[in-house]
Amino acid sequence: MIDLAREGDTPIYLQIYQLLRSAILSGVLKPGSHLPPSRQMAVELGVSRNTVITALECLDGEGLVEGRQGSGVRIVEWKEEIEGSAPATAGRRSKRSAIRFAAMLGELQRMRPPEYGVEQMPLRPGLPDLRLFPANTWGRMLRRANNRQEAADRGYAYPSGHLLLKEALTGYLSEKRLVSVTPRQVVIASSAQGILDLIVRLFVEPGDVVWHEEPGYEGMRAAFIQARADIVPIPVDENGMDFEAYRNRAKPKLIYVTPSHQHPMGYTLSLARRRMLLDYAERAGALVIEDDYDSEFHYEGRPIAALQGLRGDAPVIYVGTLSKTMAPSLRIGFAVAPRDVAEMMATLQRSTGQVAATDVQIAAAGFIADGHYARHLRRLHRIYAERRVALIDALERRLGHLAVVHKPNGGMQLVVELPKMKTGDADLARRLAKVGVAAYPLSRFYLGKPARRGLMLGFAPWTPGEIDAAVSKLQAVLKPPR
Amino acid sequence: MIDLAREGDTPIYLQIYQLLRSAILSGVLKPGSHLPPSRQMAVELGVSRNTVITALECLDGEGLVEGRQGSGVRIVEWKEEIEGSAPATAGRRSKRSAIRFAAMLGELQRMRPPEYGVEQMPLRPGLPDLRLFPANTWGRMLRRANNRQEAADRGYAYPSGHLLLKEALTGYLSEKRLVSVTPRQVVIASSAQGILDLIVRLFVEPGDVVWHEEPGYEGMRAAFIQARADIVPIPVDENGMDFEAYRNRAKPKLIYVTPSHQHPMGYTLSLARRRMLLDYAERAGALVIEDDYDSEFHYEGRPIAALQGLRGDAPVIYVGTLSKTMAPSLRIGFAVAPRDVAEMMATLQRSTGQVAATDVQIAAAGFIADGHYARHLRRLHRIYAERRVALIDALERRLGHLAVVHKPNGGMQLVVELPKMKTGDADLARRLAKVGVAAYPLSRFYLGKPARRGLMLGFAPWTPGEIDAAVSKLQAVLKPPR
Repeated sequence: MIDLAREGDTPIYLQIYQLLRSAILSGVLKPGSHLPPSRQMAVELGVSRNTVITALECLDGEGLVEGRQGSGVRIVEWKEEIEGSAPATAGRRSKRSAIRFAAMLGELQRMRPPEYGVEQMPLRPGLPDLRLFPANTWGRMLRRANNRQEAADRGYAYPSGHLLLKEALTGYLSEKRLVSVTPRQVVIASSAQGILDLIVRLFVEPGDVVWHEEPGYEGMRAAFIQARADIVPIPVDENGMDFEAYRNRAKPKLIYVTPSHQHPMGYTLSLARRRMLLDYAERAGALVIEDDYDSEFHYEGRPIAALQGLRGDAPVIYVGTLSKTMAPSLRIGFAVAPRDVAEMMATLQRSTGQVAATDVQIAAAGFIADGHYARHLRRLHRIYAERRVALIDALERRLGHLAVVHKPNGGMQLVVELPKMKTGDADLARRLAKVGVAAYPLSRFYLGKPARRGLMLGFAPWTPGEIDAAVSKLQAVLKPPR
Repeated sequence: MIDLAREGDTPIYLQIYQLLRSAILSGVLKPGSHLPPSRQMAVELGVSRNTVITALECLDGEGLVEGRQGSGVRIVEWKEEIEGSAPATAGRRSKRSAIRFAAMLGELQRMRPPEYGVEQMPLRPGLPDLRLFPANTWGRMLRRANNRQEAADRGYAYPSGHLLLKEALTGYLSEKRLVSVTPRQVVIASSAQGILDLIVRLFVEPGDVVWHEEPGYEGMRAAFIQARADIVPIPVDENGMDFEAYRNRAKPKLIYVTPSHQHPMGYTLSLARRRMLLDYAERAGALVIEDDYDSEFHYEGRPIAALQGLRGDAPVIYVGTLSKTMAPSLRIGFAVAPRDVAEMMATLQRSTGQVAATDVQIAAAGFIADGHYARHLRRLHRIYAERRVALIDALERRLGHLAVVHKPNGGMQLVVELPKMKTGDADLARRLAKVGVAAYPLSRFYLGKPARRGLMLGFAPWTPGEIDAAVSKLQAVLKPPR
């Protein structure tokens, strides 16, 4: 029986919604199962049917349930996000058949937004441990940011971001990543994905050649696809992107690279390759997009400085984010670009609205400038280092010869290759999702035919105990008891 | 002599920057004038030269000054933004001549981001009075939003927005604007401009026909231009968009309309036209974009409900914003769309990053749900009503027969036609900017040859006294003393 607080601040419908949501996310209510009819729930809870319906609409709004109230509402199965397949609703087109989405969206539909719940499932890659978010300090920073603002700060202001955050990032990036940067080169947007999208829109005309890592980051690929770029997949080896064989082909306009920890493989782009890449880009008139998404975490060897700072006036746009170090909910991504490019990005932002909230920008600036950011990163670093070892250990111990673990020097995730597997990795990920493990199949990072089979697994958000429990589920799926 | 606090919390460079900034924005330091060399300023202030240079870089980062430190830094002239001409820097291309921006950007360059200072100049249209922003209450809401978040709220979550804000907007829009809406139809993005951009990207292929009001909102036009749409300008009369003559031409895919207060003319789309427009859109298979940007303020007659709610299942995407009622710095725009369209918008948002910050979304949800929003709007309404009258009075009193004042029933701005003017209105706006009045020339809202000459003037952010002072400057420019 659910216990509702009848007198409190929180509306009854919200309490019901929150309780059901917790039950769904924690797995107490199973994916695919039905909730009782709303009429029955209302009687059992002693509330009006409308109250129940409102709560159900909330769950529906989050994509946690589906179906009509009359026939009983069903808890959605999360597998769609995991496998990256077309959503169940993709075929449910408007009754107004005349509505014609633009053609490129067919491709996009494979990349459906994740449901809330899935993000919190172990071992989903790409997330920090949000339980470690410094909420008290952040609350103070938000309050101070609000108090400090003058009327002018609350206007439209400059689309590429507030000066205080540009200043704070300039200090941080030049010191920690040896990026060559002045505030005027910094562009702040509503996420790193927004930055990638802006770059593509600035430079790519349909049919333009771009280089992408293979396997590579699917967010970049999505932006390239939308712009109808001619994507050339460049293979990746232990030294990062290996473009030697592509030197004499059609010149790319943009080259996307993840030098610190290649996404997804985790390799570091070697210094020799860095130099060659800058040489090549300069001669080809190409711009390099350096995505430095989680370089703050580096566990073995010396962290390698950013490609962007390797030589003066390098044709590089450096891209970073606060999503991996603080929280995705801040919606702050940033770039360091040559000054004319930065100005054009700001101009474009004005008409695309990919702009970050000023309260959050000023709060983040304070968080960095007052030293909280460096302290927070040191704390996370210590914890994530332990979890990385825990995941590697659990995989080697439990999977033995079935698995080849690619041990990254840094970052928040790793790839485990499963060369002896009978089925495809997408199928494996689907089966894992059913037992509560959110792994990404390696195949989803390939544009062409996947050269490897395996999984990308995150280690940052979970304790060694949670990690081992999840790997034991992986073991059970891979080696079912006879 | 500047008085610096040597012991306080605020770094010296920031104090110098803030003092100079105030001096520039208030007009104490005139546009076009030079600052003393940094070396001399350092001596006079008793600080290191580097401190001065950092402060100057801050001003430079905001676009308030330009030029090299050696030869003395110059305070920029703001006229570029006012006249909407190509920025002074447009010709300053990268040394890497190989960098080729996409072709459509030539058009975009006409739409340069505004500098900070200009926004605060009377009578700039499109802004609320940010001095009336309820900063204390907002600070409380931000703190509460931060405290209430669970770990899952700080993740990527659902790209089209947090459920609490969707709920709050659903309640507000259905009650106040009679919009037909459930939370699942609501899409929240990083600004209304972001919403318009998402819609265009979802539906417009190069060459697709779209209808735009003439004169019409330049932000929508910019998004259409980028998508290489075939823009058909539809003339506007006292009853709003008059599309009768366009019925039998090529069918549009999208129809953009501002029914409450036509932008810029301020006319209301008549009920008969609303019905005809919905009929036409249904038959033509077109989607109507209803931009309801400042309908919260209505002074004469009954406010007309949203077009979207006029009939069930109307082919309308309703667009709104918190920029005009609260503050642009929140970076929150929203849409109410048919459910399948809303889902596709969320999918697209995931790869474009046009997403709003979660802290701000939850704070805004609380602000609305707790009744602060309705109270704030009532207060603004009272104040803006007075200012509208003040602007109309000042224009009629000071300009007499030279001016035709279009008195809008609502909104935050109005158009004054100046049919007897000798020069073009862009030239007039330039001259006004020099004396500290930020008016928009009517010609900037035309795609074709402007049928009228005049100015768009905002009244919401200024007191009757400030308004009269600004109109007296307009009077002096139009009727120079002999």
